[in-house]
Amino acid sequence: MDISQMQERIARFADERDWDQFHTPRNLLLALMGELGELAELLQWKTDEQVREALQESAGRQAIEEEVADVAIYLLRLAQVMDIDIPTAVETKTALNENKYPADRVRGSAKKYDEY
Amino acid sequence: MDISQMQERIARFADERDWDQFHTPRNLLLALMGELGELAELLQWKTDEQVREALQESAGRQAIEEEVADVAIYLLRLAQVMDIDIPTAVETKTALNENKYPADRVRGSAKKYDEY
Amino acid sequence: MDISQMQERIARFADERDWDQFHTPRNLLLALMGELGELAELLQWKTDEQVREALQESAGRQAIEEEVADVAIYLLRLAQVMDIDIPTAVETKTALNENKYPADRVRGSAKKYDEY
Amino acid sequence: MDISQMQERIARFADERDWDQFHTPRNLLLALMGELGELAELLQWKTDEQVREALQESAGRQAIEEEVADVAIYLLRLAQVMDIDIPTAVETKTALNENKYPADRVRGSAKKYDEY
Repeated sequence: MDISQMQERIARFADERDWDQFHTPRNLLLALMGELGELAELLQWKTDEQVREALQESAGRQAIEEEVADVAIYLLRLAQVMDIDIPTAVETKTALNENKYPADRVRGSAKKYDEY
Repeated sequence: MDISQMQERIARFADERDWDQFHTPRNLLLALMGELGELAELLQWKTDEQVREALQESAGRQAIEEEVADVAIYLLRLAQVMDIDIPTAVETKTALNENKYPADRVRGSAKKYDEY
Repeated sequence: MDISQMQERIARFADERDWDQFHTPRNLLLALMGELGELAELLQWKTDEQVREALQESAGRQAIEEEVADVAIYLLRLAQVMDIDIPTAVETKTALNENKYPADRVRGSAKKYDEY
Repeated sequence: MDISQMQERIARFADERDWDQFHTPRNLLLALMGELGELAELLQWKTDEQVREALQESAGRQAIEEEVADVAIYLLRLAQVMDIDIPTAVETKTALNENKYPADRVRGSAKKYDEY
């Protein structure tokens, strides 16, 4: 599925339940935050190594994938109700970032990465 | 661009700057939170009507689109480094939600929506 | 209880469980984000009027108070492990804000509030 | 300053600017999220060791203290407008947590900490 197909799927899900009425930008932003919080709960006490291990176990991976999906669902829906085309927005922003952070000036060190 | 093309674009951007080393799941989750916070700052004092107006003005729309793009960029990158296929995860989760919230039981009222 | 008494209480709770080892600033920040997400889930589909009603019902109020408490607990703990005195930090920042937003220039309209 | 004194200070700041009208629970929650995002931006690419170093430098510490203060300010204000007494809520929730996580059952390992 591409992005617009996922958005159609999510819109149909909401429409069949008459939940469109709740999907204002501010409500969806709070919902997105709720889902990001659930993802944080899965990673909050783990080291990077433990995150890697969790992703290699079936139950650990599934739990993380579900939360990433929930974050994605609300982001796709938020973009849809605000009539924002995600690929165009990402392309435009990445081009801006390429100008803002020239590769030869910012390459490599955490320090530089941090300051820019 | 589809999702994997956007992810390739973002990966190349990081790679050219030798920033892959910073893109651990936990770091990217904090970065995603930072960008979601910037989006929140744009909507925090606005009514739903004022959000709609902001999206109709060129400067307002551009500011919101940039923050939505930043959230999308870090989500795409996070999924990539955790080797999660977003369309599959979204499809799986939406199917789960369809079972969890049968349309004929939850249709319509905010109250029902809330309790489920 | 004042702030340092609450912090002692929370520190003792963590100490008795040997959980201090997990209470790094980054971990606590993710935990704070998780709790803020839970609070968001309670308010995400509600109008301002419905939030007011929820706060007047015993179960609604209790649920919200528990999430506010969780956010407060992790913020108090985060400040403690970073050796930040919250009253001093709040006083310093409020004084900065008073200079940044002179009352006679920013008074009243949402528009002005937004721009500053 | 104790909590109610900080809240009075923050309320006076808002009142002098006629900003009370914007301080609904949902708006303040979005503002809290914005400030938590700014704190995340300061820690997102740092290791635990680099966070420690940042807290030992004057500029690094000041930046972090300001963001912690902003998070605290909005949390104090949010509790105030919802008429929630933070010390009571924290005490109640900590007592609940003590029952939920008996020290002798959950002591020590990250694994146990995680599962509870």
